[in-house]
Amino acid sequence: MGSKHTTRAQDYSKWYNELVQRADLAEHSDVRGCMIIKPYGFAIWERMKEVLDQKFKETGHSNAYFPLFIPKSYLSKEASHVEGFAKECAVVTHYRLKNAEDGSGVVVDPKAKLEEELIVRPTSETIIWNSYRNWIQSYRDLPILINQWANVVRWEMRTRLFLRTAEFLWQEGHTAHATAQEAQEETSKMLEVYADFAEHYMAMPVIKGRKTASERFAGAEDTLCIEALMQDGKALQAGTSHFLGQNFAKAFDVKYADKEGKLEHVWATSWGVSTRLMGALIMSHSDDEGLVLPPLLAPIQVVGIPIYRSPEDLQSISEKFETLAEAFKARGISFKYDDDDNRRPGWKFSEYETKGVPIRLAMGPRDLENGKIEIARRDTKSKEIVQFEGVDAIVEKLLEEIQNSLLLKAKSFRAENTAEANDYESFKKLINKGGFVSAHWDGTSETENKIKEETQATIRCIPLNQTPEEGSCIYTGSQSSGRVLFAKAY
Amino acid sequence: MGSKHTTRAQDYSKWYNELVQRADLAEHSDVRGCMIIKPYGFAIWERMKEVLDQKFKETGHSNAYFPLFIPKSYLSKEASHVEGFAKECAVVTHYRLKNAEDGSGVVVDPKAKLEEELIVRPTSETIIWNSYRNWIQSYRDLPILINQWANVVRWEMRTRLFLRTAEFLWQEGHTAHATAQEAQEETSKMLEVYADFAEHYMAMPVIKGRKTASERFAGAEDTLCIEALMQDGKALQAGTSHFLGQNFAKAFDVKYADKEGKLEHVWATSWGVSTRLMGALIMSHSDDEGLVLPPLLAPIQVVGIPIYRSPEDLQSISEKFETLAEAFKARGISFKYDDDDNRRPGWKFSEYETKGVPIRLAMGPRDLENGKIEIARRDTKSKEIVQFEGVDAIVEKLLEEIQNSLLLKAKSFRAENTAEANDYESFKKLINKGGFVSAHWDGTSETENKIKEETQATIRCIPLNQTPEEGSCIYTGSQSSGRVLFAKAY
Repeated sequence: MGSKHTTRAQDYSKWYNELVQRADLAEHSDVRGCMIIKPYGFAIWERMKEVLDQKFKETGHSNAYFPLFIPKSYLSKEASHVEGFAKECAVVTHYRLKNAEDGSGVVVDPKAKLEEELIVRPTSETIIWNSYRNWIQSYRDLPILINQWANVVRWEMRTRLFLRTAEFLWQEGHTAHATAQEAQEETSKMLEVYADFAEHYMAMPVIKGRKTASERFAGAEDTLCIEALMQDGKALQAGTSHFLGQNFAKAFDVKYADKEGKLEHVWATSWGVSTRLMGALIMSHSDDEGLVLPPLLAPIQVVGIPIYRSPEDLQSISEKFETLAEAFKARGISFKYDDDDNRRPGWKFSEYETKGVPIRLAMGPRDLENGKIEIARRDTKSKEIVQFEGVDAIVEKLLEEIQNSLLLKAKSFRAENTAEANDYESFKKLINKGGFVSAHWDGTSETENKIKEETQATIRCIPLNQTPEEGSCIYTGSQSSGRVLFAKAY
Repeated sequence: MGSKHTTRAQDYSKWYNELVQRADLAEHSDVRGCMIIKPYGFAIWERMKEVLDQKFKETGHSNAYFPLFIPKSYLSKEASHVEGFAKECAVVTHYRLKNAEDGSGVVVDPKAKLEEELIVRPTSETIIWNSYRNWIQSYRDLPILINQWANVVRWEMRTRLFLRTAEFLWQEGHTAHATAQEAQEETSKMLEVYADFAEHYMAMPVIKGRKTASERFAGAEDTLCIEALMQDGKALQAGTSHFLGQNFAKAFDVKYADKEGKLEHVWATSWGVSTRLMGALIMSHSDDEGLVLPPLLAPIQVVGIPIYRSPEDLQSISEKFETLAEAFKARGISFKYDDDDNRRPGWKFSEYETKGVPIRLAMGPRDLENGKIEIARRDTKSKEIVQFEGVDAIVEKLLEEIQNSLLLKAKSFRAENTAEANDYESFKKLINKGGFVSAHWDGTSETENKIKEETQATIRCIPLNQTPEEGSCIYTGSQSSGRVLFAKAY
């Protein structure tokens, strides 16, 4: 099994690229850096969206939609935003095509040049805060708690499906508050929402932390993040939540009158997760045979496969599976019965293994006679023959068990791959082995950069809620009051 | 009431523009032609999406996502597509900005010019059929039944919120089939889905019909549509479903091997509805006081308003509404209790009237004493005082009644505004009065164009399933075998 495919041990990166395509999740399009998310991949993303959207609404947010295009001049309005944000953006300069005079197709009409170029949004703080100016007059208009599901474009030169693409899908929350404290609480609250989603739906444990000044979002006063560890020992930033202070309110002149009528600048947050989460999900659990999906995000939780020679056998087995389908429906379990006569059972076994369907049920004529059914777990590859009667209850329990077991496994993996380093030599060894390395740092960007240059490791975050600990920086020996988490990262 | 706002009779178009903004549905952004869909408007659109998405899935479709950008050369590959499709598109020519040397902000980096310009998708047939080429080899790969929810851009010069904007949101279905018949059945099936949604959710009756050759989608062999009549007597095309024949398969070289191994070009359909439906919804039911929403699409179906002087009264009334909130939740009715102390009841009455909330409940101290509550319908503006006990059941029944009543009212309106014309003079009179005019036409584009030039009326559709009727063209007197439906249109 899996012999024809690259294994994780052979080449992790190649294993990933092959898997995304084998499992029919996504593919590269002919448009440089833009991916096509195929139906099976999109079904997983839809499930993620659905859960997150509900959590956003439960925490008081509404969805809205802002323009795809941002006037070029807006990007320059917030000084650190323009300074720090990548300049690789898609630029719209014209608004019309015309037929080529030689009949060879269409050409850009030079007469249709825009007065000001438009940028395809790489993120929407500027266009949204430009609108908030008109929406906010008094404290009664606050807070504004808005989220947007959208496509964004950042012209990446080296792209990888889901992990880094020129166009990607995401959600971006943009909130406006009367006080700094309220905005900071919002920043923390949304980080908790992300962490909870990662752990309880993606079965992916995350470290909640704060970015260092040099890793902060351009325009933020504080960036919180969740960091996950992939199976190859590299870290992946899975979501960020920014406290933007009054930076965008000042840049776009957004003020509110408080109860005394005094004008104050508004406080802001923004927070987002993207289709990058798909990459994180794939790399957290999958194995050399294919995808492994946590049941709570699997488009198909259970697949049923009949094994038969005669049409009579197929009919009897199908009747059994029909009963089961009803039972699963009643329990809210998504079930697919695959009786496609064009494919053999072996092909189907391999197909659903590749696609990470958590539980596979198979029934042949002998099982039918004995009132039995075979139940197989995708994650552990264990199989057993059980009584047909009551298998729906067993499946429901097993789905929960798989969900929990994937999280536990990922937690153990992370524990095994997190270490403390107390001097630079052992730090370098640990970093080369992979995983998180917890170490003291003197708090300067200079040291951070030097360590990065020498080891390719970055400070993933300053973990929240960790016990203060006096120590000395592994690089400079200067004083430090707590450890930070280093890793090589995606 | 409504005296400070433009009425429909005064200026229908101005009434519409004001209403969209007063009801907080959408607004113009600073980016030419691009709208901002505000939370209340977006909540209605989300509800539409949810219902349609479920219908697409029930009819076997899956969602996927294709790139925002289309290489310019793709647009020229299908001859009638490039010929007929509007050339007003947003064109991306560069992929990088840089800091201006004089420190004045950012400028486009001239070194970052794309070799081939990219077009922001105005519709996705070309990029999708370019992908289908790799997805389809044999009859086993068919049908492909895919839908995409996406933003698209058509550079409209004269824009109106929801009805005509440069960027809009829509869904576009793109299916691939082994036979012409199967593709034609799909085209009809999706038209039925749209018609059913329009009638049973939007409470908007529609005429199902076929477009004339000159009104067909560029690249289609046949375009089916649903046409609705607005309160000002103008028609609005609310959805289209296209049979594309083998045009795109030929342009992008998409073939499949049938059971005998013979290579054939694939047959295609595409179908879509957009945020234009929001405009149709608003114009179908709303009145001079504000929005009127059908209960099945209303984000808030019932609003509860306390009328009180003392905090004690408020508390007692709030307790009653809390019980009601529970009862509504159990019945799946969306309810908002507005006890905001900063606003007076009169302000709230007007606010929810403007926003089209189907049912308003109000309770004051005297109602509390008598075990009563006031129930008011938004559509008819009728009010009555009923027993508090059991009001949840009354509300549930009333929501159904309102939904049905809106559809009936719209149907009567359409019936009153549909007439037959048998000569050109009476045709012109009827067309100037507004509404649908059913008349004989000789079947030529020439006549169609002349009538359009002289009266501004277009053939909205050739209604499906109408009884054949011999007659003579109102314009040329030539023979005709059936009536077509004319109207001035949005």
